[in-house]
Amino acid sequence: MTLLVDADRLRADLETNAEFGAIETENPDARGRTVLTGSNANERARTYLCSRLEDAGLTVEVDAVGNITGTWTPPSADPDAAPVAAGSHLDSVPEGGIFDGPLGVYAALEAVRTIQESDHEVDRPLTVVSFTEEEGTRFGGGLLGSSVATGQRSVADALALTHEGTTLEAALESMGYRGDGRLDCSEWEAYLELHIEQDTTLEATGVPIGIVTAVTGISHSAVTLVGEANHAGATSMAERRDALTAASEFVLAVEESGQQWAEGEDETAVATVGQCVVSPNATNVIPGAVELGLDIRAVDREAMYGLLEEAEASLEDIADRRGIDARFDRHTVVDPAPMSERCQAALAGAAVESLPLHSGAAHDAMHVSRVTDAGMLFAPSRDGISHNPLEWTAWEDCATAASVLTRALVELGTAE
Amino acid sequence: MTLLVDADRLRADLETNAEFGAIETENPDARGRTVLTGSNANERARTYLCSRLEDAGLTVEVDAVGNITGTWTPPSADPDAAPVAAGSHLDSVPEGGIFDGPLGVYAALEAVRTIQESDHEVDRPLTVVSFTEEEGTRFGGGLLGSSVATGQRSVADALALTHEGTTLEAALESMGYRGDGRLDCSEWEAYLELHIEQDTTLEATGVPIGIVTAVTGISHSAVTLVGEANHAGATSMAERRDALTAASEFVLAVEESGQQWAEGEDETAVATVGQCVVSPNATNVIPGAVELGLDIRAVDREAMYGLLEEAEASLEDIADRRGIDARFDRHTVVDPAPMSERCQAALAGAAVESLPLHSGAAHDAMHVSRVTDAGMLFAPSRDGISHNPLEWTAWEDCATAASVLTRALVELGTAE
Repeated sequence: MTLLVDADRLRADLETNAEFGAIETENPDARGRTVLTGSNANERARTYLCSRLEDAGLTVEVDAVGNITGTWTPPSADPDAAPVAAGSHLDSVPEGGIFDGPLGVYAALEAVRTIQESDHEVDRPLTVVSFTEEEGTRFGGGLLGSSVATGQRSVADALALTHEGTTLEAALESMGYRGDGRLDCSEWEAYLELHIEQDTTLEATGVPIGIVTAVTGISHSAVTLVGEANHAGATSMAERRDALTAASEFVLAVEESGQQWAEGEDETAVATVGQCVVSPNATNVIPGAVELGLDIRAVDREAMYGLLEEAEASLEDIADRRGIDARFDRHTVVDPAPMSERCQAALAGAAVESLPLHSGAAHDAMHVSRVTDAGMLFAPSRDGISHNPLEWTAWEDCATAASVLTRALVELGTAE
Repeated sequence: MTLLVDADRLRADLETNAEFGAIETENPDARGRTVLTGSNANERARTYLCSRLEDAGLTVEVDAVGNITGTWTPPSADPDAAPVAAGSHLDSVPEGGIFDGPLGVYAALEAVRTIQESDHEVDRPLTVVSFTEEEGTRFGGGLLGSSVATGQRSVADALALTHEGTTLEAALESMGYRGDGRLDCSEWEAYLELHIEQDTTLEATGVPIGIVTAVTGISHSAVTLVGEANHAGATSMAERRDALTAASEFVLAVEESGQQWAEGEDETAVATVGQCVVSPNATNVIPGAVELGLDIRAVDREAMYGLLEEAEASLEDIADRRGIDARFDRHTVVDPAPMSERCQAALAGAAVESLPLHSGAAHDAMHVSRVTDAGMLFAPSRDGISHNPLEWTAWEDCATAASVLTRALVELGTAE
């Protein structure tokens, strides 16, 4: 298969999309945008996508939570066959980059256009999808649209999510993107998502395509330690219940535990205390309370839960020894999501050269993988930077990855 | 000596002074005030003191940095003899209590009045002093008036200190308390300062008087650790330069070092990391930088410097091992101030029952002790609370301590 996308057409769509919510930056290498759910920028991005889907002859639908699909049923296809889907999201973090999300959406559209113009016949309808609010900046903490489309959250619960007094329903209505029904990913034959790597492995190795083996499991926990604030001069070392020294022991225990799992059973295991807030936080006052934000991830489910258990046990031990009150709240736990073997094979077969990689970040494909075969491919990220106007993927790398996506869609869309 | 102060007169002065800058509190046990240099409250407090000094027949002087003295030369005294002084300060921290400072000033005045009314004869003039801005809330970081009166800072440097665009000179002029000349504590025979304990030893033991053996040395250092902020999911444990895990090692090293010195050579040694600010401080981002505020104190000079050296060496070692950039800035170092044996003996001899104590907090007596004999006595603090409207010392404890001060002044003011 020699299917190659039209690199200029793909670039033109991405550049047009980059104008919606574009932010000023002084750095000539930087190009940022802020596209939050319900904003004018989000509305314009959605409307442009719909027009481009229609231009290509796709049937556009918008579901109750604003997920947008465009479906093409080729003459060669059984219109009742389960479609093969591809896409990503159009929203961004505040002051994010122009590739994270849009590359996956517009590469999917470009793939369909390329197949339409080729003499390749596919047996299934092809669906381009843009999921609502993947980034979680305003509503629901991330992967919102795919959580509803995979049945993990009800439409009603999603519409009731509130940001600064505005519900998701009102935000979607304000843009004219509160549609009907519920997109159901379990009806798809398979789903592919092209995304930027957000890391440096491809850049460092010079390989243009990463085939994702699994999206890591992710847990976020809030850890609170409460000791006793006191005068740093008048309180002897023996009398103290210092919340920060206790927290420091915990931070080091988490690091050691992460290192042990990574050197042992799962090299993808990572454990990070990224947030630390001390009260009252004055040099001459013994810290009375510390709040920590703990991020634990691993591709192996046992590793992720093992790390969580070790962290919780460490905290209990430290609190007991130091006479500190401690609380451990696992507020977000998402199991690892292995990508389907079939999708990985289709992507690897479509690429001239590729590397198997795991994804350390969450993506909509995580949710989709629970209900149907899902696969992801990565394009190189300059310096591994994302969520930043410096996020960049060379235009030729975008086209190369979109061509691989195209060939894999044909492969998956063709009866064996 | 059975000299006893007039408890009601002392209380009346303290209650009147408490009205200047008084703040509303809902707690019936709380009584707060905010008296900052240059404020209307500060002006009223100064003017009331001057009127009370004059009422008692003292000669009032105001020096160039606003230090106020009132001197009484008894008929029995050599007017050229070096005076014995006592006092403290009238300024407060924002929303501070009504005893921290004023107790020492008005007890000194009450002591002079009590001696005037007694048949005790003293051979030296007696001086009541109120030092400008002890708390350091606006100008110069603390012990301002006494730093000038002991020659540690020039009048010109002090007057040029600026807070929010206003110089100390302008603040003093606005109140009419920018006087002339420089109070010179080295001309005093001795200095005594009565202060609230700000700790619970006296309350816990039921002893009404603490005799301060030394004011602890105090150092504040700013410690900065810079690693590399990175994605908590995409950066393996082995690739990290985590500023918070490095900072945690440092916090624990400081704690251990403090415990060792306290158990060994100087039981007053304390080492505290009270402040910790993490950047970017997001759960899913590896900390790139941490700023710590380190407070090290000890009554033994060797212990304080030993602790500082150990902390600095620990930081260097941690930074080397972890590939972190680190900086250690000892921005404030004040040597310990032993109180004079003679003053301690005079105070102990004047008290029915007393405990030797060190002071873990700084006081003007620290500066004065560098240029003449200085002594301090403590009155009990309810629950050890200070710098807070809940700061409280029972009125009878105020009177008991003021009577001890009175008898010690007579002792020091009498030729041997």
